[in-house]
Amino acid sequence: MAEYNSLPLVSAAEQFAKLPGIGMKTAQRLAYFILNQPVEEVELFSTQILNARKSVHCCKICQNFTDTEQCSICGDEKRDKRVICVVEAPKDVSALERAGGFSGVYHVLHGLLSPMENIGPNDIRIAELMKRLSGDVDEVIMATNPTVEGETTASYISRMIKPLGVKVTRLAYGLPAGSSLEYADDITLQRALENRNEL
Amino acid sequence: MAEYNSLPLVSAAEQFAKLPGIGMKTAQRLAYFILNQPVEEVELFSTQILNARKSVHCCKICQNFTDTEQCSICGDEKRDKRVICVVEAPKDVSALERAGGFSGVYHVLHGLLSPMENIGPNDIRIAELMKRLSGDVDEVIMATNPTVEGETTASYISRMIKPLGVKVTRLAYGLPAGSSLEYADDITLQRALENRNEL
Repeated sequence: MAEYNSLPLVSAAEQFAKLPGIGMKTAQRLAYFILNQPVEEVELFSTQILNARKSVHCCKICQNFTDTEQCSICGDEKRDKRVICVVEAPKDVSALERAGGFSGVYHVLHGLLSPMENIGPNDIRIAELMKRLSGDVDEVIMATNPTVEGETTASYISRMIKPLGVKVTRLAYGLPAGSSLEYADDITLQRALENRNEL
Repeated sequence: MAEYNSLPLVSAAEQFAKLPGIGMKTAQRLAYFILNQPVEEVELFSTQILNARKSVHCCKICQNFTDTEQCSICGDEKRDKRVICVVEAPKDVSALERAGGFSGVYHVLHGLLSPMENIGPNDIRIAELMKRLSGDVDEVIMATNPTVEGETTASYISRMIKPLGVKVTRLAYGLPAGSSLEYADDITLQRALENRNEL
């Protein structure tokens, strides 16, 4: 957007363009959209987003995002505090909760170990996890992604936990539901064979 | 985002999801992104967008978006006020200015006639255009899109203007630059033939 455009309009587009996955073209479209909305709607948009940033912080126990001191999962009496599921990011908690079937609690690392990106053990929330293990914990489930960084982080943390006598498990590898053998990659197929279960 | 998610986070995602082309999944990703940005950045984002909506209005002459009484094009002494280019939306002004080569002024209709969507002549800025023609105007260029609605609007307005003795022209049809005859659609090819120029 060049000098013939109104400056506040250009500024709004530039702000939208800072969002991930939104280029200048889409940002301009969003800015034009905003101009056509009722002022109250735009006020709501503006305040709700700022409010989220200002009121949301990390749960002091599991490090997931919350606007209260303790998140709703850590504060839920029905959740089993002796089983901790370790994930990379808050969105992984959303995914697992959506899937259902897990009644324990979480620990959000806010990142994965990555020598390539210079992210070491002190850059993610490992110390906070170790502190929790001094309490009454039976099992830690490593639920990081099945990528190089996810695997590295899982094995690094499991090596730290094992001496404490706490059981460490890893999410199962195998064929995704509804998929087809034909299109599965080699590593997935190998792992599905290795980890085959008796019927 | 369900009840295990912090409410302000859910609200922020819902606000993002109201933007065109942004689904709930992307909206969640944007909300998480916002939480990881410095507060000052989010404040800037929030205020710039609200500011655009509050300070930008339509130029009293050409109806393009501006934050001053008259837009920068209408206020520019070097622009030829006797040639008015009529477009559907402010983004078309951006496109034409980017392309360069036009030194006249614009008129933004803010829509196109569309019986299907119940948009009639009083719903777009035709009256504002007619008012401008009482002044010293030599030519009106209809630069609406080459779609059914664009054509209908162009011919409707040209029929209103002709009795005033003002010349009305339409953007040329033909092959887009860098395109290939092989993939051109029939109507484009027919028009490119009809409107052929002498070399």
